[in-house]
Amino acid sequence: MGGSVFGSHFRISTFGESHGGAVGVVIDGVPPGLELTEEEIQVQLDRRRGGQSLASTPRAEPDLVHFMSGMFEGKTTGTPILMILYNEDARPQAYDAIKNLYRPGHADHTYLAKYGIRDHRGSGRASGRETAARVAAGAVARKLLEKRGIRLFAYSKRIAGIECPEIDPKTFDPKNIEQNPLRASDGNTAERMMVEIEKAKSDKDSVGGIVECRISGVPAGLGEPVFDKLDALLAHAMLSIGAVKGIEFGTGFAAADLRGSEHNDGMDAQGFLSNHAGGIIGGISNGQEIVFRLIVKPTSSIEKPQQTVGVDKKSHTIVTEGRHDVCILPRIVPVVEAMTCLVLEDQFKALAALRE
Amino acid sequence: MGGSVFGSHFRISTFGESHGGAVGVVIDGVPPGLELTEEEIQVQLDRRRGGQSLASTPRAEPDLVHFMSGMFEGKTTGTPILMILYNEDARPQAYDAIKNLYRPGHADHTYLAKYGIRDHRGSGRASGRETAARVAAGAVARKLLEKRGIRLFAYSKRIAGIECPEIDPKTFDPKNIEQNPLRASDGNTAERMMVEIEKAKSDKDSVGGIVECRISGVPAGLGEPVFDKLDALLAHAMLSIGAVKGIEFGTGFAAADLRGSEHNDGMDAQGFLSNHAGGIIGGISNGQEIVFRLIVKPTSSIEKPQQTVGVDKKSHTIVTEGRHDVCILPRIVPVVEAMTCLVLEDQFKALAALRE
Amino acid sequence: MGGSVFGSHFRISTFGESHGGAVGVVIDGVPPGLELTEEEIQVQLDRRRGGQSLASTPRAEPDLVHFMSGMFEGKTTGTPILMILYNEDARPQAYDAIKNLYRPGHADHTYLAKYGIRDHRGSGRASGRETAARVAAGAVARKLLEKRGIRLFAYSKRIAGIECPEIDPKTFDPKNIEQNPLRASDGNTAERMMVEIEKAKSDKDSVGGIVECRISGVPAGLGEPVFDKLDALLAHAMLSIGAVKGIEFGTGFAAADLRGSEHNDGMDAQGFLSNHAGGIIGGISNGQEIVFRLIVKPTSSIEKPQQTVGVDKKSHTIVTEGRHDVCILPRIVPVVEAMTCLVLEDQFKALAALRE
Amino acid sequence: MGGSVFGSHFRISTFGESHGGAVGVVIDGVPPGLELTEEEIQVQLDRRRGGQSLASTPRAEPDLVHFMSGMFEGKTTGTPILMILYNEDARPQAYDAIKNLYRPGHADHTYLAKYGIRDHRGSGRASGRETAARVAAGAVARKLLEKRGIRLFAYSKRIAGIECPEIDPKTFDPKNIEQNPLRASDGNTAERMMVEIEKAKSDKDSVGGIVECRISGVPAGLGEPVFDKLDALLAHAMLSIGAVKGIEFGTGFAAADLRGSEHNDGMDAQGFLSNHAGGIIGGISNGQEIVFRLIVKPTSSIEKPQQTVGVDKKSHTIVTEGRHDVCILPRIVPVVEAMTCLVLEDQFKALAALRE
Repeated sequence: MGGSVFGSHFRISTFGESHGGAVGVVIDGVPPGLELTEEEIQVQLDRRRGGQSLASTPRAEPDLVHFMSGMFEGKTTGTPILMILYNEDARPQAYDAIKNLYRPGHADHTYLAKYGIRDHRGSGRASGRETAARVAAGAVARKLLEKRGIRLFAYSKRIAGIECPEIDPKTFDPKNIEQNPLRASDGNTAERMMVEIEKAKSDKDSVGGIVECRISGVPAGLGEPVFDKLDALLAHAMLSIGAVKGIEFGTGFAAADLRGSEHNDGMDAQGFLSNHAGGIIGGISNGQEIVFRLIVKPTSSIEKPQQTVGVDKKSHTIVTEGRHDVCILPRIVPVVEAMTCLVLEDQFKALAALRE
Repeated sequence: MGGSVFGSHFRISTFGESHGGAVGVVIDGVPPGLELTEEEIQVQLDRRRGGQSLASTPRAEPDLVHFMSGMFEGKTTGTPILMILYNEDARPQAYDAIKNLYRPGHADHTYLAKYGIRDHRGSGRASGRETAARVAAGAVARKLLEKRGIRLFAYSKRIAGIECPEIDPKTFDPKNIEQNPLRASDGNTAERMMVEIEKAKSDKDSVGGIVECRISGVPAGLGEPVFDKLDALLAHAMLSIGAVKGIEFGTGFAAADLRGSEHNDGMDAQGFLSNHAGGIIGGISNGQEIVFRLIVKPTSSIEKPQQTVGVDKKSHTIVTEGRHDVCILPRIVPVVEAMTCLVLEDQFKALAALRE
Repeated sequence: MGGSVFGSHFRISTFGESHGGAVGVVIDGVPPGLELTEEEIQVQLDRRRGGQSLASTPRAEPDLVHFMSGMFEGKTTGTPILMILYNEDARPQAYDAIKNLYRPGHADHTYLAKYGIRDHRGSGRASGRETAARVAAGAVARKLLEKRGIRLFAYSKRIAGIECPEIDPKTFDPKNIEQNPLRASDGNTAERMMVEIEKAKSDKDSVGGIVECRISGVPAGLGEPVFDKLDALLAHAMLSIGAVKGIEFGTGFAAADLRGSEHNDGMDAQGFLSNHAGGIIGGISNGQEIVFRLIVKPTSSIEKPQQTVGVDKKSHTIVTEGRHDVCILPRIVPVVEAMTCLVLEDQFKALAALRE
Repeated sequence: MGGSVFGSHFRISTFGESHGGAVGVVIDGVPPGLELTEEEIQVQLDRRRGGQSLASTPRAEPDLVHFMSGMFEGKTTGTPILMILYNEDARPQAYDAIKNLYRPGHADHTYLAKYGIRDHRGSGRASGRETAARVAAGAVARKLLEKRGIRLFAYSKRIAGIECPEIDPKTFDPKNIEQNPLRASDGNTAERMMVEIEKAKSDKDSVGGIVECRISGVPAGLGEPVFDKLDALLAHAMLSIGAVKGIEFGTGFAAADLRGSEHNDGMDAQGFLSNHAGGIIGGISNGQEIVFRLIVKPTSSIEKPQQTVGVDKKSHTIVTEGRHDVCILPRIVPVVEAMTCLVLEDQFKALAALRE
């Protein structure tokens, strides 16, 4: 049904293309009486913006959010909130050179197959720019979750083969993540990652990596049996982010070779003895920290010449100019957090409805 | 909203517990005039049944499906089809010993946290028995997909650390999979896997592994932008299967260390030059084979003593008797196929609605 | 999406045809821990059964309800509840004579146009028999509403041109309604109605009328702005009942000729001074009694010869034999109540989710 | 789930308050490649605007629509279309006098009960201004329906007790409706209606009436069985319009006193012999003209003094100043048409999905 609606109770409906008039979101389901400012939303949007390091696109959209409905005297009214971000730094003509070619790794070909029409200007609806709407909506959910005592953060765990040391959730301070431009959990590792990014940049190439997300404070009981298991909903949310190609919870793929006696999380009177499950059992949160990891593919847009085909059905060599991210992970981190917030807040409402 | 509904256009609503009266499914959205027999459904259900090898539970539910509505003179009428499977080999008393203990790796604790009530008989709604309803519904979707020229199969790629050789999609015959009890792609490997399963069984333990699913014949254009990307929908579907803890598409997690120039699938006039994307770009099928892999955790129910806690909040040692699968992969394979069919058929209908 | 699902939070999915194997319903969203017995459901189903007076069909379906899932030791578990009613008194051969003719006022022609296939046996899915599933589900919602202090009743206000005196909500005892076979609010009027029904029956004809529904105890605040106004949801629910052709709230159509100063319900410190609005303003309950009325068309199935057309596209005279209701109102009354309960319970859950 | 989403396949999500930043709508499900201009939408919006006669509010919102997404080179792309209308003539201070009083017939009291917060400026979300979003979305659906050969119109059938002569659908030209300011079907009647409106205006009062809607060209087969009958969906749509308090199809309430032999629409080889059913049987269109009527209550906002209560819980006399419609019917007509278009287009897509 169009694919631009997410959530059942805290429901968002997004819109917008890279080079159209605006991107944005309508949120339905925000409780009335919540104090909310554009500035609070802006904090999260600023984390997603480009132009912050050489890893990211130089496109300098200010991404200023405007509330257009659902607010009264600084509080939510319980009715739909429209948040709109006008496109300001759009340079659609930059894409003229490639408008008749399919960029490898891009949705140019698949969108044309689906729709029979293609907005080639910066990928149109397939642009990562649509994630600004997710971050704006997620910022509202995040505020509600904070009131519930939920704390969550995502970070770049691995970039270009360089991996951060394992986090100790008892001692790790999430503020570390904002203190390096790659949003890695460890500053020294970030410097080594940056070296690899610089190499890729000078090769006109790009790199990928792994993002990890950790959520604490979720009580046992969130998520639904069968189809809407909490991990199924999170997987849906995460795979909906453009460059994400996989997800694993807890021990993840490494659990394939374990035995049940090794993977099962035993309990005693004090609680769980381990967390191989990543905080979700039978699709329902068990009160432990929720942990999952995402594979983020290397950015598709590279200036290195690649072989492709055109709408003329002939072979071509393509060079994707424009303004791109050598490594998208630092900008995906706030998107991962936003989508996590949307899933969790929706499930808190689902639980309230069930118990009513 | 309960979590027992899946799909938007080809929509299923399932019900049933391991030891209640029945499990089953209502399907809404089957086109009228389709010839359909209980026998066709039964073929798939029989693949999911236990008792077929020492890897699986000896519980011998016949799992006979009965059509109760939506059919007239051997054809679908376009109205909801109820398929019901009565529980016949239920032995709820077998669970009396553990009704006050939380089995490690099981949803006992989380269900009780969520609902405040727990049907301890064979996990109730959290039992793998609910997947019979998925397989029955999936068999209907599969029939419709076959008419569209879609071919798909899943198989046990890796069990207990033993992995099948890479499949060559051009030459591989999916019939191989049904010729060994583990539904591996390669019979020799299956024998080696079985040795490990026997070891685990004698240790009163269990093993996990990796299932791969491959789909050919899907035209470019399936899937929706933004939230309902085809990979997001498949991830949702797969993570909703009890023992699945992760999913990856195409090159998957191994893509984390690749560069864009390595991962991008180039094209020439004859088509794609590689398939790192796993057949889905920008969330939309690109006409190539769709490939994804799932991590299946080792079965939680083991007879080996484990440490746990009881409703008395004291520590206990638990031995999970009953009838369980040492390795669930061969029985998960038809469930993976069924869920894949449900997602694809739903998306064909979504595309028809969009273009109407 | 099939049209057999109703509600968002207290969601039902019904199935079944007049002469198939069974009719029934899956309910998702019942809170866990509710004590519930088949007997409680049966009480409402028995009110809907035929065979209770000469106004109704002699078809004697026992309509015995069976719980098949979602229950444990007499309590709901919070998972889907399947309630099934097997068809026992089906006599499909009774419809052989008309299987190639379109009965006037029936869905024979429209179903065939829609589906290209038609289950002619007692109208298939278009049969009033599907309302048994609604009544079963509604009985669960009713139990939850009673705990909230909601009281509601419907009754036959007008049949065959004979109308009951206006009810005084302060003094009227809803038990009166069950004390006459037509479920009129007034026994003397019911006797006069019955005279008209007998006349119609001897003429091999049928009669219609008006049903009124009154609900008290609903707090102010139920219903949603814009599209899901409480009156819009109730109208949807009521017009979904086969023979209903219109609905009006409060003063209803008579308000067309009033002025604003006459129709507006003034207030003073003690509350509202009148109830022209029927308890709903701006789509949201205002705490007053909710009042609406439905027009129920005369039963389509009559034995009187009628002019029609056949699948042979030629003109025919048809006599609809079989077992029909001369006046359907007394059997529609519990269906109206059930649908009202489903809407209200769903909205209580919606409100809980909004405020969460 | 908030109540601001309508439709399943052609789905709209609206937002906006009377005196906030903007009102508007996101449409998801518009087929790609449709030529569409803001001018085409504007035509319908201009019909809904105030200030066109003394019957209507003098508030002079230009209601200029802006496309913000989903368009490329004058064509739809198949992705969500945001249409926004900025509020320009907002005078919120005009409402200061009543911000602590509940206006009789208005949603002031019910919104406050529901939300605990109330945007008193022109009713906030409860304002009729939200219908601009419906009309904008409906204009897109209308264009698609016209391509399908659907023709539809609504009109003021009765105002202040004055009723237009019965329309003969074979000869009536819908253009007549736009030739008088009340959108009556008959110009002479419109003049008599206007006399009554002037009287009411000079009495600082308001009037109501009846709107009729007629749709031709709908093929047999539209609408779904059981809960989503075409008349149920239309009833839902119509009762969601602020001032509408009832609906009837075909013969409507007058059918209560008919017998089955009178109400049933017979057929012969040439088609139906009458249309008491209003074009819908068993919830599915039968190929005849679809006909329904709505009761529109007299405008709640009147300058005549009325008795009410304040947030101080004391009795007050209120005079609702501001800019209001003495008779809302001419402005409701395009809203009725828009909602009808949304229902029909959604059902065409539902049918395509079913048959796929």
